[in-house]
Amino acid sequence: MDPQPIIRSKQTENTIKGIQTQVVCTEFSNYIFIVLTQYGKIGTLVSITPDTKSGDISGPLHTTKVLLGKDEPLTHVYAKNVATFVSQEAGNRPVLLGLSLKDNSAETMKTVKDMIKSCKVW
Amino acid sequence: MDPQPIIRSKQTENTIKGIQTQVVCTEFSNYIFIVLTQYGKIGTLVSITPDTKSGDISGPLHTTKVLLGKDEPLTHVYAKNVATFVSQEAGNRPVLLGLSLKDNSAETMKTVKDMIKSCKVW
Repeated sequence: MDPQPIIRSKQTENTIKGIQTQVVCTEFSNYIFIVLTQYGKIGTLVSITPDTKSGDISGPLHTTKVLLGKDEPLTHVYAKNVATFVSQEAGNRPVLLGLSLKDNSAETMKTVKDMIKSCKVW
Repeated sequence: MDPQPIIRSKQTENTIKGIQTQVVCTEFSNYIFIVLTQYGKIGTLVSITPDTKSGDISGPLHTTKVLLGKDEPLTHVYAKNVATFVSQEAGNRPVLLGLSLKDNSAETMKTVKDMIKSCKVW
């Protein structure tokens, strides 16, 4: 019998456009937990769940739900943008995402996605 | 200006009554995030928030809310039992708790609380 592994977690830090940015990724069997923060906060907590009943050959669609914090339309867009590829790479596991960014520009989102890739725990 | 610290996280593993048990504690400025798991899952996600308008000299009362998973009365009891002291020690910060235990006996809860104390990040 394999020993049960301890929870895997990786984190990284980077300065994007002068703003300190932290990424923490933790693997659970039923969720990938990711925090992206420029405030040191968990921030808005969003679940990104693959929809098993929809989607096409490129993969399932994803449903986003704000669990904690302000429920704003852009939050859902950002959450899908940064977390969909993680869900797909992790065997369609849902993602739990804590999001508190000062800057939501395309450049920041691109760098943040690269930071997530460097913290691959799935 | 102090450099912003990287997110602090500690974890520990223990075998309680033959069951492998993992605890992960992570500090955010607005939440302490704790996962207690015997399944490797995030499990039921509960927020434990001190109520600023109630309570007496022994400290504020706490409100529990299930954000993900089954909303069962005992979940609220366990969540308050293991997380209230963390919230109090962490300057009345709210706690975000992932709970997936196979065994909810008093003995397990006591050991789990000791494990949380050994992962103090607040």
